[in-house]
Amino acid sequence: MKHTYLIIFTLFYSLSFMAEAEDGSSLWLRQSKSGETRVYSSKSSPTIALAEKELKRSFRGAPVVLKRQKCKDLKADGYSIKFVDDKYILTSTTDNGLLYAAYHLIRQQSTSCSVRSDKTIIENPAYNLRLLNHWDNPDGTIERGYAGSSLWQWDDLPLVISDRYEEYARANASIGINGTVLNNVNASPDILSSEYLIKVKTLADIFRPYGIKTYLSVNFATPMILGGLDTADPLDKEVEKWWKNKAKEIYKLIPDFGGFLVKANSEGQPGPCDFDRTHAEGANMLADALKPYNGIVMWRAFVYNPEDADRAKQAYLEFQPLDGKFRDNVIVQIKNGPVDFQPREPYSPLFGSMPRSKTMVEFQITQEYLGFSNHLAFLAPMWKEFFDFVPAESLEAIAGVANIGTDTNWCGHHFAQSNWYAFGRLAWNPELSSEEIAREWLSQTFTADKNFVDPIASIMAESREAVVDYMMPLGLHHLFAWGHHYGPEPWCDVEGARPDWMPSYYHKASDNGIGFNRSSTGSNAVAQYPETLKNLYDNVDTCPDEYILWFHNVSWDHKMQSGRTLWGELCYRYDRGVQTTRHFQREWDRVEMYVDSERFKEVQNKLRIQTRDAVWWKDACLQYFGQFSNKPIPYDIERPVLNLDNMMNFKIDITNYECPPCGYSN
Amino acid sequence: MKHTYLIIFTLFYSLSFMAEAEDGSSLWLRQSKSGETRVYSSKSSPTIALAEKELKRSFRGAPVVLKRQKCKDLKADGYSIKFVDDKYILTSTTDNGLLYAAYHLIRQQSTSCSVRSDKTIIENPAYNLRLLNHWDNPDGTIERGYAGSSLWQWDDLPLVISDRYEEYARANASIGINGTVLNNVNASPDILSSEYLIKVKTLADIFRPYGIKTYLSVNFATPMILGGLDTADPLDKEVEKWWKNKAKEIYKLIPDFGGFLVKANSEGQPGPCDFDRTHAEGANMLADALKPYNGIVMWRAFVYNPEDADRAKQAYLEFQPLDGKFRDNVIVQIKNGPVDFQPREPYSPLFGSMPRSKTMVEFQITQEYLGFSNHLAFLAPMWKEFFDFVPAESLEAIAGVANIGTDTNWCGHHFAQSNWYAFGRLAWNPELSSEEIAREWLSQTFTADKNFVDPIASIMAESREAVVDYMMPLGLHHLFAWGHHYGPEPWCDVEGARPDWMPSYYHKASDNGIGFNRSSTGSNAVAQYPETLKNLYDNVDTCPDEYILWFHNVSWDHKMQSGRTLWGELCYRYDRGVQTTRHFQREWDRVEMYVDSERFKEVQNKLRIQTRDAVWWKDACLQYFGQFSNKPIPYDIERPVLNLDNMMNFKIDITNYECPPCGYSN
Repeated sequence: MKHTYLIIFTLFYSLSFMAEAEDGSSLWLRQSKSGETRVYSSKSSPTIALAEKELKRSFRGAPVVLKRQKCKDLKADGYSIKFVDDKYILTSTTDNGLLYAAYHLIRQQSTSCSVRSDKTIIENPAYNLRLLNHWDNPDGTIERGYAGSSLWQWDDLPLVISDRYEEYARANASIGINGTVLNNVNASPDILSSEYLIKVKTLADIFRPYGIKTYLSVNFATPMILGGLDTADPLDKEVEKWWKNKAKEIYKLIPDFGGFLVKANSEGQPGPCDFDRTHAEGANMLADALKPYNGIVMWRAFVYNPEDADRAKQAYLEFQPLDGKFRDNVIVQIKNGPVDFQPREPYSPLFGSMPRSKTMVEFQITQEYLGFSNHLAFLAPMWKEFFDFVPAESLEAIAGVANIGTDTNWCGHHFAQSNWYAFGRLAWNPELSSEEIAREWLSQTFTADKNFVDPIASIMAESREAVVDYMMPLGLHHLFAWGHHYGPEPWCDVEGARPDWMPSYYHKASDNGIGFNRSSTGSNAVAQYPETLKNLYDNVDTCPDEYILWFHNVSWDHKMQSGRTLWGELCYRYDRGVQTTRHFQREWDRVEMYVDSERFKEVQNKLRIQTRDAVWWKDACLQYFGQFSNKPIPYDIERPVLNLDNMMNFKIDITNYECPPCGYSN
Repeated sequence: MKHTYLIIFTLFYSLSFMAEAEDGSSLWLRQSKSGETRVYSSKSSPTIALAEKELKRSFRGAPVVLKRQKCKDLKADGYSIKFVDDKYILTSTTDNGLLYAAYHLIRQQSTSCSVRSDKTIIENPAYNLRLLNHWDNPDGTIERGYAGSSLWQWDDLPLVISDRYEEYARANASIGINGTVLNNVNASPDILSSEYLIKVKTLADIFRPYGIKTYLSVNFATPMILGGLDTADPLDKEVEKWWKNKAKEIYKLIPDFGGFLVKANSEGQPGPCDFDRTHAEGANMLADALKPYNGIVMWRAFVYNPEDADRAKQAYLEFQPLDGKFRDNVIVQIKNGPVDFQPREPYSPLFGSMPRSKTMVEFQITQEYLGFSNHLAFLAPMWKEFFDFVPAESLEAIAGVANIGTDTNWCGHHFAQSNWYAFGRLAWNPELSSEEIAREWLSQTFTADKNFVDPIASIMAESREAVVDYMMPLGLHHLFAWGHHYGPEPWCDVEGARPDWMPSYYHKASDNGIGFNRSSTGSNAVAQYPETLKNLYDNVDTCPDEYILWFHNVSWDHKMQSGRTLWGELCYRYDRGVQTTRHFQREWDRVEMYVDSERFKEVQNKLRIQTRDAVWWKDACLQYFGQFSNKPIPYDIERPVLNLDNMMNFKIDITNYECPPCGYSN
């Protein structure tokens, strides 16, 4: 009998311990469930009920009052918080605003910031549309997803509901994300079938109380493939009608459906140009179909084709002339840089060049070009860098390509969660500093202990620059391997392949130098930038180091601002990247006592992979380019340990939705 | 017609260029063939003819006179060199001595040392017997050989004669080696068959003019296996007779045959103990058979068995009581250390413990425990360390287990040639410093340019200590992988295996500490050493760092002479090993301009492997032992990049005669 009790006790103890185990599944929402706070609301709604529930679950402190009321200082979703008469008064004009205010209060508590001040906090989002783009396919794979499979269990929907759907919505709401595009921009037409729309409706119903609208990527040829029409010409009446009917069907199921995201005439996708129509004509036709329901069209400007001489110029050349031709419910969605989510690019000159059109930026949260879910790369500094050039207020909206999957910790790398978090926070307020965001996230996700937060926030701050250093410093870009974007292949040469998919197209290394001449003596891409920047970038002596090989083909002996030759500087930067990753390892090892052992070891392992990969990148690129520079790697730099021949014969056999478990080495 | 000339010219040019290509095949004998020196000899013989040929081929300078005559200052093989009346006078009592003198003169020239002085050079060898032991098998494999296959083409002999036979003899003669044991101590009885003896005779005839005698390893059970006897009991008359007849047969073919080397009752080999006879009785029986012909027996003291508590004590326990019982043509051949050619061992206490017996040392030139032919480890400092404890004059002879095979560069690693060279030079003169030998070898093998020799001699000087550091510092030993002795497996645990073949037998790591207690409170192996050393080693506070874990099980917190804890010191030493290999890479890269590109790249590649392997050793051992020390690796030390789990699951699938092409990583 005693024995039985013991077993039951042990079982209970184990279960409760397991519930507390830290596997990253709770993200930054790890607040203990000991909240005893009283919460009062002036109104009731499913969203307000969620706000109450969150506060009761997690907030420890004075009573909270939720007030939904008009207030001239508050835009939609905005809120205020003040502390009056020993109570927190949370005010918003919308239910969503109250939910955001509740998360604000909980976040303040977790980050050990006091909110008991006389000052009223007023928060308004910078953008009304703060969206995640999922590149998820109906078969469960995620293009450029490195954290398991798609969250959306299409086969089980609408009957079986995964717990993750609501957890996903809650996580997004907690950082202000209010829209989600469920499926890949390389879209399957099936997503608009009646069968799938029922499934989409089910998800939309779960997301709605969290203030999240649902959107879909659509295939421009859907009327042909799914509708059986002969054409998808946007000026064809039957096509227009097909889309109008489809919109009607969607809105009947999902009255607050957000709209469509479209990748057209890009990388083999169908589009209006197939029927000699412009992007504007295509976008407007869809916009007209959605207009009656207040739906929008986000039309991607990511287009390029292999015949043109400079890929970096093409989106501008194709879209800028269309300025002013788009409906007011069309937003042109532009990637931050003119090529494709490289570790560093100058901003896309299309921003600021379409004053009579609505534009939005597309960031990539998933680390397609920054080490997948193996490398620690905090991306807020990269996005902040973008906002240094493109005023936040010039944009209509903001989207981020998600890094979320079925992995226990959602993102593959525990620190990749910080990029999901940072995207949400910056979408709400692009004025936040990278450091503030890193510290907020660390405090909630691990511990607010200063001895932990200080050094690790510092790692995060340096991490994106480290990736630039060990992968592609000084404006180099697209040196990635054929078939995936993980490892280095500056030598890549695939017979018959698109020239603009070859690294040599971008680096143009020769005995004379290295870099893409986009100056006025070259492709003249500089001319797409405003005069001041154009002049700065056009001159090799004034062009910042960060972009020098983006805009110029520079001789190996060119004297850099550091006093080093270009070759010396290149070597120095690659090595600095390696030494920085070693530094990250050291700093992480030092904080072992502040972190649960499961997450400590998982991050430790990833940092080891990152160092090994940094060495791989450095050894590959410096030895490959050294064949052109004909100069030794300066002797104060850590020597290569890998042989070029071996690296050139090494292939990682992975698909577009896998993260290699260990990089180059065992 | 013109075209044809061009082709012929090009072909000629290419061929002559190829002849000059540096692939390491010429060893340290790369002197140009431009010698025009006149040579005069007082006598003629095949050996003197060789001396003349070598001088004419390689010496550039004043005429040389070769004089064979008695001289009271000269022992057998000794020689004098003086410069009189614008001529070099080379004098020796033997033809071999004149050949050695010729090589001396050529070496002086290559190392840029002047011999034009008034001082007469007198050289006498420290040992009359300076032998290589080949562990070559009849099937062409070489046990612990990492440089290709056996030089001896048994199937082709005696009809087909490889050029390498004479090149081998020449190389040995040039450094004073005067004996070779052709076959593995784990000997095939076949070697004594009439069929094989004809082959052996053919080799002996080639080696003879170079002053090299031929020896064979014999299997003690040969009379049973080859002779059909029922026993190999050394006191059996038929057995005695069998051996006497065999000796007679051998000497009829090879009148100057050197004798036998025997591994008996060791690691499964047959021996006199199988018949309840002692090692002395076995050795003496063979010695009696060889005595009429002045042949000798070298009887190995490398014995141990798994039942005893401390393998390091066993050779002493078994052989010391036999002191004085051996015939005067028996030499007991003892490995330098009491266990087995580890990167560092204290000397074997058997040396100095058998004053009434002839003893000789067995060094291992092949790097069975020092990184095979992948790692640069110059072994002269290790052998010199031995002579610091064991007076050279207390030994009768010296043997080295060869590192030579069919590889183009003979030894697998270009720098492994230096160990063959150093062995020969030290066998002649143990007083030579490691540095002198390194500089001599570098000057002849690469270039005498000071800018090359200074830094690379420095690398060589540090290299063995570096291996100790990154493999087994502080007296640790035998942490090697099961199945080969290349990589680390301190965790190795093979069910049913001999306990004394398990690393844990040697390191005895636990939460309390690490190391083998051989002090008076443990196995008391210290008691086998002379009183002064015994007292020094027995006390953990006076025992030198180098041997501390050899003689003591030391607590992790023990304060070392550096002020660090044992754990801290262990980490520091492993890391120092890694940093030193990185330093080697840097120094080698710096001298690229002084080295032909073929050998430069081959050595560069090997140094890369060595650094990767050093990291592997450090990461494996520190993380494995860290599980016992329960302390972090000090944070000023380069962090591990490999995971213990992965390393524990990694196996290199190689035989005992293969060098893994790339170590742990790709």
